[in-house]
Amino acid sequence: MQTDTLTPQDQAQAQAQAQSHSLIASDRVEGTPIRRSDGQKLGAIERLMIDKVSGNVAYAVLSFGGFLGMAKKHLPIPWARLTYDRLLGAYHLDLTDEELSRAPSFAANADFDWGDRSREIDVHNYYRVPPYWGAY
Amino acid sequence: MQTDTLTPQDQAQAQAQAQSHSLIASDRVEGTPIRRSDGQKLGAIERLMIDKVSGNVAYAVLSFGGFLGMAKKHLPIPWARLTYDRLLGAYHLDLTDEELSRAPSFAANADFDWGDRSREIDVHNYYRVPPYWGAY
Repeated sequence: MQTDTLTPQDQAQAQAQAQSHSLIASDRVEGTPIRRSDGQKLGAIERLMIDKVSGNVAYAVLSFGGFLGMAKKHLPIPWARLTYDRLLGAYHLDLTDEELSRAPSFAANADFDWGDRSREIDVHNYYRVPPYWGAY
Repeated sequence: MQTDTLTPQDQAQAQAQAQSHSLIASDRVEGTPIRRSDGQKLGAIERLMIDKVSGNVAYAVLSFGGFLGMAKKHLPIPWARLTYDRLLGAYHLDLTDEELSRAPSFAANADFDWGDRSREIDVHNYYRVPPYWGAY
């Protein structure tokens, strides 16, 4: 698997995103890469899933695969688990290939049952973060 | 204080909310119209502005104008002020033309200074909702 190192384009994007204010546009998060500490790209953020009532961002949906015969997959990642890394020009997530393969996911052409709280609990347990809806 | 009994409308809404799951995709909110109670379209949601640290959706940016020689304008609307109305098929916001013209806005080709908290306070005062960042 090739290592995706930072291109000047990535760095420009990183700089733009790192502007001082604390707000970020949804359409700017969409498409932003997710990388490991070593710079390797795991995939990109397809969309955000927002809790309608509280207005909290619950998940970033990571899209990966879709090349070399590998099926395109979507992974819901709790927003609380992602941090933006200026140097990487990406959101930062350290998952090994093995962890990635075991992470809760769904086929890109299928639909995740967002209403199934037990699946949501699995996701939060997997990433060891507290749930966006409070305690369970 | 009035007794809060459920009207048939409330019950229909409650049922709809129970049926549909509580999460919505960011790329589905983008482009959704905002309408008055009478169905008149004010514009459409251009994007969401998200507080990076807390993961709260701070604003929906309403895009309107751009026809009949009217400049295209963007209005930041506190997320807490918008409710999705299934019958309207849109987010619901009752602003008269006059209120719309006085609402905090910026030209679509300009950039709102999201880092300027005093402007953000103006926006929240205008829509009479508590700020997403807590008290001020």
